[in-house]
Amino acid sequence: MTSPSSQAVFVLGGARSGKSRFAESLVSDTGLDRHYVATGQAWDDEMRNRIAQHRADRGDILWTTHEEPLDLTARLAAIDGEGRAVLVDCLTLWVTNLMMAERNIAAEFSALTEFLPGAKSRLVLVSNEVGLGIVPENRMAREFRDHAGRLHQMIAAASAEVYFVAAGLPLKMKG
Amino acid sequence: MTSPSSQAVFVLGGARSGKSRFAESLVSDTGLDRHYVATGQAWDDEMRNRIAQHRADRGDILWTTHEEPLDLTARLAAIDGEGRAVLVDCLTLWVTNLMMAERNIAAEFSALTEFLPGAKSRLVLVSNEVGLGIVPENRMAREFRDHAGRLHQMIAAASAEVYFVAAGLPLKMKG
Amino acid sequence: MTSPSSQAVFVLGGARSGKSRFAESLVSDTGLDRHYVATGQAWDDEMRNRIAQHRADRGDILWTTHEEPLDLTARLAAIDGEGRAVLVDCLTLWVTNLMMAERNIAAEFSALTEFLPGAKSRLVLVSNEVGLGIVPENRMAREFRDHAGRLHQMIAAASAEVYFVAAGLPLKMKG
Repeated sequence: MTSPSSQAVFVLGGARSGKSRFAESLVSDTGLDRHYVATGQAWDDEMRNRIAQHRADRGDILWTTHEEPLDLTARLAAIDGEGRAVLVDCLTLWVTNLMMAERNIAAEFSALTEFLPGAKSRLVLVSNEVGLGIVPENRMAREFRDHAGRLHQMIAAASAEVYFVAAGLPLKMKG
Repeated sequence: MTSPSSQAVFVLGGARSGKSRFAESLVSDTGLDRHYVATGQAWDDEMRNRIAQHRADRGDILWTTHEEPLDLTARLAAIDGEGRAVLVDCLTLWVTNLMMAERNIAAEFSALTEFLPGAKSRLVLVSNEVGLGIVPENRMAREFRDHAGRLHQMIAAASAEVYFVAAGLPLKMKG
Repeated sequence: MTSPSSQAVFVLGGARSGKSRFAESLVSDTGLDRHYVATGQAWDDEMRNRIAQHRADRGDILWTTHEEPLDLTARLAAIDGEGRAVLVDCLTLWVTNLMMAERNIAAEFSALTEFLPGAKSRLVLVSNEVGLGIVPENRMAREFRDHAGRLHQMIAAASAEVYFVAAGLPLKMKG
């Protein structure tokens, strides 16, 4: 008997790598009820344009959309259920939001990681790989990069499948 | 019968990853007449040194070299022909040049992408992956990163083979 | 008969990618006497904390630790021997140290590369991939990135196995 932890899929990729589109195709292919959890808040016009573009790309008619910048695990628990597929896009924005709100990062990361194995929904989590450039000059950016890297290791370990996406092409790292 | 689109090869990699050397070996291995299309202009001494180093690495006696910072698709069409192998190095510099010249980026990207399937030459296109670090602080750099990422997805989709190169080692992503 | 060069393993990854942990597991799995060569100097509190965390993660009771910021090849030669496994973490910090000390980078890189094939120890070398972000604005960072990329190509060519680590997951590039 397969553990429920085999449900979660983690999709990691760079900026404009096609990771969101790939993750959306994974959700669509399930044939389940689709839920989209956006962690991004529309701070400024540039961000608003990106979110609008993401919505247009996705065709929002077929999705139920949730905006959840901070309480991601609670939100996933609230919408969790058999017959549902949930896309979370993206974890790095969530990390940024947690840092700005001065939340307990370690506790938040543990809660999300521990939620994954028992989830009834088919979960697909998207995140940005940000650790492959030069060390950032400011300390906040370094801390963000460290947090993101640690979260990615935790989520990858708790997921059944992990993909690295570059140039729109998925590379299976696990599963 | 294989479509002509199976000719194009896309080589993506980081700075000093060995992507150019690998791409050059792909071209040399064809045994065809070799053409090198350089998108880089020798703006300053640092860039000039890099180009000179690239030329020395390549052994220019065996190659016909073309400098084409902007009108890449027209140039590729002009030198296109059976029995030829053409190396383009690199697409990210072309994106930078298009932005500086305020060209219509979307139109330029579409034209190049649409050229690939019908090309008679064996095309090998090289580009820098630039989307795996921290989000850049200035808007121009973010726009450049977005353009590059979108172009990479388009070129990868239109290519028969795609490689990701790190530490001189090619990883086949497609083909 | 296998050449002794088949001993070296190169582990490349981003910041907080889990590369050190993976490299440490490779060393531990050998069952040999374990040596850890740290190239990092404890310049400031942030760096001190990282090193302390690395030590705690590793369980230093089972390891012999060496701090060697500059003369890495000489140190590896001094501790080289049958029945030993040596972890070097990491090469990018070594490159930074060489630049700050104005050493002859090319000579240092060649010496390390030439040492690998004849080493009696099982060597595992860790390094940061730093070339997959936007081109850094300052020249020193660009030079560092170029040096690191060149070293990675040399070490990968001289190693029997090469892994790229992301989100704690190793991807075999060679071997």
